[in-house]
Amino acid sequence: MPIYSAPTRDTRFVLDHVVGLERYQNIEGFTQATPDIVNAILEEGGKFAAEVLQPLNQSGDREGCTRHPDGSVTTPTGFPDAYRKYVEGGWGTLTAPAQWGGQDMPMVLGTAISEYLMSANLAFCITVMLTEGCIAALEHVASDEQKQMYLPKLVSGQWCGTMNLTEAHAGTDLGLIRTKAVPQADGTYRITGQKIFISGGDHDLAENIIHLVLAKIEGDPDNVKGISLFIVPKFLPDADGNPGTRNSLSVGSIEHKMGIAGSPTCVMNYDGATGFLVGERMKGMRGMFIMMNAARLGVGVQGLAMSEVAYQNAVQYAKDRRQGRAFVRAPGVTDAADPIIVHPDVRRMLMDMRAFTEGSRALALWTALQVDLARRAPTPEERQAADDLVALLTPVVKGYLTDLGLQITATAQQVYGGHGYVKEWGMEQFVRDARIAQIYEGTNGIQAMDLVGRKLPAEGGRAVRAFFDLVSRAIADGKAEADLAPLAEALEKALQHLQGATLWLVQNAMTKPENAGAGAVAYMNLMGVTALGWMWLIMARGAREELGNGDPEFAKAKLLTAKYFAERMLPEAGTYRRRVEAGAETLMAMPVEAF
Amino acid sequence: MPIYSAPTRDTRFVLDHVVGLERYQNIEGFTQATPDIVNAILEEGGKFAAEVLQPLNQSGDREGCTRHPDGSVTTPTGFPDAYRKYVEGGWGTLTAPAQWGGQDMPMVLGTAISEYLMSANLAFCITVMLTEGCIAALEHVASDEQKQMYLPKLVSGQWCGTMNLTEAHAGTDLGLIRTKAVPQADGTYRITGQKIFISGGDHDLAENIIHLVLAKIEGDPDNVKGISLFIVPKFLPDADGNPGTRNSLSVGSIEHKMGIAGSPTCVMNYDGATGFLVGERMKGMRGMFIMMNAARLGVGVQGLAMSEVAYQNAVQYAKDRRQGRAFVRAPGVTDAADPIIVHPDVRRMLMDMRAFTEGSRALALWTALQVDLARRAPTPEERQAADDLVALLTPVVKGYLTDLGLQITATAQQVYGGHGYVKEWGMEQFVRDARIAQIYEGTNGIQAMDLVGRKLPAEGGRAVRAFFDLVSRAIADGKAEADLAPLAEALEKALQHLQGATLWLVQNAMTKPENAGAGAVAYMNLMGVTALGWMWLIMARGAREELGNGDPEFAKAKLLTAKYFAERMLPEAGTYRRRVEAGAETLMAMPVEAF
Repeated sequence: MPIYSAPTRDTRFVLDHVVGLERYQNIEGFTQATPDIVNAILEEGGKFAAEVLQPLNQSGDREGCTRHPDGSVTTPTGFPDAYRKYVEGGWGTLTAPAQWGGQDMPMVLGTAISEYLMSANLAFCITVMLTEGCIAALEHVASDEQKQMYLPKLVSGQWCGTMNLTEAHAGTDLGLIRTKAVPQADGTYRITGQKIFISGGDHDLAENIIHLVLAKIEGDPDNVKGISLFIVPKFLPDADGNPGTRNSLSVGSIEHKMGIAGSPTCVMNYDGATGFLVGERMKGMRGMFIMMNAARLGVGVQGLAMSEVAYQNAVQYAKDRRQGRAFVRAPGVTDAADPIIVHPDVRRMLMDMRAFTEGSRALALWTALQVDLARRAPTPEERQAADDLVALLTPVVKGYLTDLGLQITATAQQVYGGHGYVKEWGMEQFVRDARIAQIYEGTNGIQAMDLVGRKLPAEGGRAVRAFFDLVSRAIADGKAEADLAPLAEALEKALQHLQGATLWLVQNAMTKPENAGAGAVAYMNLMGVTALGWMWLIMARGAREELGNGDPEFAKAKLLTAKYFAERMLPEAGTYRRRVEAGAETLMAMPVEAF
Repeated sequence: MPIYSAPTRDTRFVLDHVVGLERYQNIEGFTQATPDIVNAILEEGGKFAAEVLQPLNQSGDREGCTRHPDGSVTTPTGFPDAYRKYVEGGWGTLTAPAQWGGQDMPMVLGTAISEYLMSANLAFCITVMLTEGCIAALEHVASDEQKQMYLPKLVSGQWCGTMNLTEAHAGTDLGLIRTKAVPQADGTYRITGQKIFISGGDHDLAENIIHLVLAKIEGDPDNVKGISLFIVPKFLPDADGNPGTRNSLSVGSIEHKMGIAGSPTCVMNYDGATGFLVGERMKGMRGMFIMMNAARLGVGVQGLAMSEVAYQNAVQYAKDRRQGRAFVRAPGVTDAADPIIVHPDVRRMLMDMRAFTEGSRALALWTALQVDLARRAPTPEERQAADDLVALLTPVVKGYLTDLGLQITATAQQVYGGHGYVKEWGMEQFVRDARIAQIYEGTNGIQAMDLVGRKLPAEGGRAVRAFFDLVSRAIADGKAEADLAPLAEALEKALQHLQGATLWLVQNAMTKPENAGAGAVAYMNLMGVTALGWMWLIMARGAREELGNGDPEFAKAKLLTAKYFAERMLPEAGTYRRRVEAGAETLMAMPVEAF
């Protein structure tokens, strides 16, 4: 059975040296995140992940979810009990607002914990963690009355939430949705339509499920501007706010998927269900984007989470499995075979995984810090600057980290040879589970288009210029110090490629947007590898500090991994730039019939 | 349900312009492969694949194989009938020697057909096509009597064959195997031991199964030098050569795998089973390598086959699915949404797949031609030259094409968005099925080590120098012509990187073999992308010829795809070279405990 142990040491390193948690003690939410509290939460969160969630991961995959003849859905054995413990432990309320019963901890800490939980059991997390997106949307757009009604129970975990966007013919292109809302005399709406791919659309974990549903009110424009957002509860709250009448909605079926089989992905049928308009009529996309942006960062962390757990197992196997002999054997060794970790190509796989995974963790937590600062930094300028960076980096974290997730889980599987292909060992499940993260909450192609088409040009490129400044400053500082200079110089080349590609897009994609589309994914990868290189430079500086005090072995490993990233990963930047600058011409010249 | 239609037009293009089939009409086996015959075989093979095998692919995955309480194994519904048709159609005898009942067609044609069959149903093919490896091994090392006994029935398909190498503790490192052979007074051996991961170890397709089993004869050295090869039939042939006494071997279990669920992967228990020594005692690795090398090329073609079928489906979906609007719409179009093939990033995915897939087909068929020439070219010099190239390129075809197989099937799945993750659509099966090809018949890391550690230095680098000559000549010819020059120049840069990396290895890996191990996979990728670039240059020349006669639309698409390969793929070469030249130092400096 696969192992998992939360990488708390590495998280603390990132919090200390990349996030610099102690610098923000004056900010609301961070005040209570003292080092002792943070350590305790990381340790306890790691324990909960490893002891409660992880043992259900493989069995959950095998058993899957069940839709019963009465239309009800049950999750795999053990999931309801684990959810009870999740709620009791307060793992769902960590970052939720205190006003509604949450613990109001910084997002950066919530992100660290969510990595652990998702490493341990992605399917479980997918079922319950969209509740956070619902909470965020309701906080921003719901009426006070709606907040009073729904937020305390969503925050406590007594109820769960979902996002209902996709329809069979409308995924990326939500303007096409057909779900209708008909206004009623009492101010409610009758919602009719079918939604697909609804994670946690029904289950046996919570007493009620609050669906946030996109629909068009009768008579409103039949395009993206006519979309409104509705609360459609499974059970309509009664006068006391308890689950009352069963609403007219049902699960048509649950999908049979490549992975995350422990999470019920539902076809939801709304047959004149009672819904409540949230926020303004025809402004439904606003609430949806609040949900979506929170969810996108979370999905990026899924890529990291799958990478970490797959890496840990690959390391264990590489130390246990004996096959072949080292080129250079330690004196006195006479065993028939050595552990495969002696072989350079096995190490190459482990280092590839590690360099990307640790870099991803740093970037994810740094971006989560910006989410905190965007909400809570003392001045509007600081908040705006952080918000710019969140907007810019969200598609990169989502797209790049989840592409790495597939690559790294497949590499970890490869370390196992034939055993990696057999279900029993659990490695192939990581690959299957990781695969979804590249697809949902906007495919990675959509992320790349969001980055290039929306985030880059916004405010005259303010966000990307701020990003270049940050990286340039780190490079300048690094080049001034002999031991950091090689990494800083490697990063400088990557940054030059990124800046070159950016300039090319400015000059060539404004007039011909097809050039933006043709280079978008390459550009996202280019920004991803540069951002991770930047994180490695910051981490190398932090590791150097730790060399002298306390944990030199840990610090040495960090420095070697930073060097590895510079030698092996940063050179990719040149290829990505070439792809961006290749433009759309060849692509678009091919007639449709020629495919 | 997924579609499949054999790419006969593209195969013929490669046979005409890359292989140049008509140039070899004087060679045995090619004589009968007249254009008419070749066309008929391609058409009929494509029809058999699409009409008989492909309809069983998804159902076979869902149903899987069954081991019954009596230990017998059955394949999915429809497989036995399909096998009967496979045998009747002569699809198993295409390249087998006429002496034993085969059709003696060139390997290049057999390879083309095997691509079709594997695209249509990889699990089916894996179960039955290892028989070809057995035939090859027996042809080379078996006694005349053994050949008479086994070859006619293996060639006819009346019996099937397997390869039994791996044991639970011995995969890559076969020297560790524990299966024992005890000599008997009658000249036979009693074979005892357990083999795992045996494809087609038992099934209901053929009346007998001939296992070729690696074992150590009692008293022989307990390492790779003590290994002998045995024929161990499921049913011992009686005096008339018909299946007689049931041998003492049984299936312990069948594996539950990530994919190729329609192929029974068996744990085989040999309990004093009767075996017959094949070839010389303690020379078992020789026969094994004959099987293995044939199988490795075949596995490379699996990568191509999965890429092709996944691509075809992605194209269909991209033409059907409407989502969003083109940046530039054709005048008069008023539909709410356009087919997604209008979007540059969707085209980018299709072109990525296509450029790699068509390049892979060319390389696979060109390498298969070298197999033919190695056996049948008129002079020993020509045979040796072809054999050198087969040896050099076999690990590249196996490793690079199967790594592409995973990448391309995952890209095709991505085109489908959420629908790609749902089993019903069939795209996720291609990813799961393609994944095995990177692992078996030697993991791709082992292929890379074989390339760098064995094939490069062999005969003072004779093979790789011959390869450089071929590519250089194509570049020189290409540069002389204006329309081919850009591609030739892009290829020239890639070749320079490959030559630079080769020189680096010569200078740095002889004394320090860890440098070879650390850079092996990057070197394999570098040779892979260069070899495909070379194929594209040859194909571009061929396409130019076709522009004028007959099929200009096909030729134009080829030329555009060649351009795309030069713009987008060849730049990878620089990154791979940097990785090779990074060496082993950083990798090996990490203490084992630091992982």
